[in-house]
Amino acid sequence: MTRAHPPSPRPPVVLFTGFEPFGGEAANPSALAAQALDGQLIAGHRVVAAVLPTVFGASLARLDDLIRLHQPALVLCCGQAGGRAAISLERVAINVDDARIPDNAGAQPVDRPVVAGAPAAYFSSLPIKAMLQALQRAGLPAEVSQTAGTFVCNHVFYGLMHRLAEPGFAGVRGGLVHIPWLPAQGSPCLPLEATIEGLRIAIACALATEADIRLAAGALD
Amino acid sequence: MTRAHPPSPRPPVVLFTGFEPFGGEAANPSALAAQALDGQLIAGHRVVAAVLPTVFGASLARLDDLIRLHQPALVLCCGQAGGRAAISLERVAINVDDARIPDNAGAQPVDRPVVAGAPAAYFSSLPIKAMLQALQRAGLPAEVSQTAGTFVCNHVFYGLMHRLAEPGFAGVRGGLVHIPWLPAQGSPCLPLEATIEGLRIAIACALATEADIRLAAGALD
Amino acid sequence: MTRAHPPSPRPPVVLFTGFEPFGGEAANPSALAAQALDGQLIAGHRVVAAVLPTVFGASLARLDDLIRLHQPALVLCCGQAGGRAAISLERVAINVDDARIPDNAGAQPVDRPVVAGAPAAYFSSLPIKAMLQALQRAGLPAEVSQTAGTFVCNHVFYGLMHRLAEPGFAGVRGGLVHIPWLPAQGSPCLPLEATIEGLRIAIACALATEADIRLAAGALD
Amino acid sequence: MTRAHPPSPRPPVVLFTGFEPFGGEAANPSALAAQALDGQLIAGHRVVAAVLPTVFGASLARLDDLIRLHQPALVLCCGQAGGRAAISLERVAINVDDARIPDNAGAQPVDRPVVAGAPAAYFSSLPIKAMLQALQRAGLPAEVSQTAGTFVCNHVFYGLMHRLAEPGFAGVRGGLVHIPWLPAQGSPCLPLEATIEGLRIAIACALATEADIRLAAGALD
Repeated sequence: MTRAHPPSPRPPVVLFTGFEPFGGEAANPSALAAQALDGQLIAGHRVVAAVLPTVFGASLARLDDLIRLHQPALVLCCGQAGGRAAISLERVAINVDDARIPDNAGAQPVDRPVVAGAPAAYFSSLPIKAMLQALQRAGLPAEVSQTAGTFVCNHVFYGLMHRLAEPGFAGVRGGLVHIPWLPAQGSPCLPLEATIEGLRIAIACALATEADIRLAAGALD
Repeated sequence: MTRAHPPSPRPPVVLFTGFEPFGGEAANPSALAAQALDGQLIAGHRVVAAVLPTVFGASLARLDDLIRLHQPALVLCCGQAGGRAAISLERVAINVDDARIPDNAGAQPVDRPVVAGAPAAYFSSLPIKAMLQALQRAGLPAEVSQTAGTFVCNHVFYGLMHRLAEPGFAGVRGGLVHIPWLPAQGSPCLPLEATIEGLRIAIACALATEADIRLAAGALD
Repeated sequence: MTRAHPPSPRPPVVLFTGFEPFGGEAANPSALAAQALDGQLIAGHRVVAAVLPTVFGASLARLDDLIRLHQPALVLCCGQAGGRAAISLERVAINVDDARIPDNAGAQPVDRPVVAGAPAAYFSSLPIKAMLQALQRAGLPAEVSQTAGTFVCNHVFYGLMHRLAEPGFAGVRGGLVHIPWLPAQGSPCLPLEATIEGLRIAIACALATEADIRLAAGALD
Repeated sequence: MTRAHPPSPRPPVVLFTGFEPFGGEAANPSALAAQALDGQLIAGHRVVAAVLPTVFGASLARLDDLIRLHQPALVLCCGQAGGRAAISLERVAINVDDARIPDNAGAQPVDRPVVAGAPAAYFSSLPIKAMLQALQRAGLPAEVSQTAGTFVCNHVFYGLMHRLAEPGFAGVRGGLVHIPWLPAQGSPCLPLEATIEGLRIAIACALATEADIRLAAGALD
């Protein structure tokens, strides 16, 4: 991915965020992916990666700062989904915090809106069906997910989409991807190299795809 | 459940709907539950139960007719969730149809809104946390679910909540409950008697509960 | 279950055993089932039920005492299987202890034989396919399982079958049944009443069935 | 893995077998792994790989031919385990065929012994705990499994261990490894490259390990 002569002027930015480990775990594959992707060039864009605190509120404040600072063309937030076996392209963010466990600052909100008075949900503005197809063609386990949960991942996803719905962000796309555990964390899992490769493919596809494709990837229930 | 002296004047109505079998299956526990609950008295309300076609569009048209006809105080739609092990109280309906399999009329919409131009989602207006607690106290497997899928169940759930959001329906509550397979359909499953008992408890709780309780029942992802 | 005129002389005995709670849990459905079944008459047999310690070695010593004392015609050991959604009729006991967690006495053997020098495995001598059919016909979730694990349940199952293989026990049948969690323990689960009803049906079927039926109930892997 | 100067005389042989696709599937990752590993040198041994028919009886006849022809030092049979998320090191083969679906020749035996009159089970003679550790250290998803099912995989595994129990095969080790689906087959799955890498590590570890290590890897049930 290194290039001898980086394009000049500076290429547009893809903002990629992972999360700190949480729930007593020692690692979070999304933070390791952020480390690996930071500074890479993908489809003419430079990846700026950061690790958000796994904390309600503070995570979103940090994301807002990053967006203001880097003015990205695309924002991909990434979180760990223990128990999932595939790279999960999230379809929808919902306006509720309902925490089964405390966040990394000890807060455990129950049935509180992410943004009071805001819409019940936002759909991802990433071309998740095209991304699904690209991942599957690369031989990687991938799926569209109908829920990002109600913990900090959904919180950040919702806050991101609410921000990008403001007039100043026309044309900036964003969304959330959940990734499986590392093998050392339990089963099901995905080797880190496969996950990083998948994220690179997902970003490249999102940058290259104008209108999403039609591909059934719903859930019966 | 005996009703030697039915109250007079006629008690208010709870509208309960199940679905026809679909996906090649011979039975649908939600239809059997509708049959069992029809006509029962629960907490001073009379249950009117019906079985909706598992068909995009037609299911909602039928539901609208039933609502107009019976003017229920509460609407509980119920569907089968193969692969789930507990009675699932659905939190949110999303504005998308994305069918993995054809419905019973052969239609298979992909990424089509349930109602064009309408909000991305509606939250259930049932007290799902109080219902969760009531089911658990009765020794029945129950959970709050963050997604009702993108097939006909979510379609009906979304259409119901969109209708109930109209001014004429102030105070009418509604939501969706997913129930596990019958033992004959596969595993995990729940005996039909336990499912029906659970639905009765859920309805009674919804009728008796004004403001929902605070009880963590979210998902990490 | 009524027994106005208990048969005289004393009816033959079915020995049923559950286990103490383990792994930090407050309850074990197999112990509750033992409590419920103790003293019942099933198909002309009297159930003698006991709760074994969830301890390698001591559990088997206690089982041996019970067998010597009651000279049962049939022995059904029963244990809890967290994570299973159906009543599991175990096919085979293997000669190994490999404990992921300590037993209730703090022991955690790894790759130690249950009985040194004894065969690698014994098959259940219960008619598990007929029992499967009986449970399914009663609308209860049931399955044949190809592994009873490597903890105290398998230990007791292996020890039981090794004992019953001795010449003095010709005609005495035995086996192990795993049952799901109670709803309060997590998901998947089964209401206690359904589990007890299933055990009663399983015992009655085992007593009534001479030669097992042919019914495919294997696993692909 | 290529070596400029292959050792002379010819290196000892590791026999690796995969299976034909079955159950209506278009591919079987174990056959692709066989293709990839054939001819490779691992820890001074040459891999001879073959694809067995997914047929009761014929698979074992072919395995016997291969063993006679190549006189391997180690035999690793490999099969696909749809639904498993990790490379599964099988602990025990049981003496029963019980097929949920027909094999590739249309046969569907129920509760028939693999070898009439032979022991109920054999344990793998591979150092499965050391192999588990080696896979985990390489960041690959791995587990010890307590059942290889009752279909053709277990049939071949049992037949292999029964053969290796004969006096002429002292010192020849053998066992079975189950591998997850390819991503194109469904979820959970593992990219083919990760699976092949894992098999190479497993073989190298088996060749390098005299006595297995003590490492808890049992199942509670």
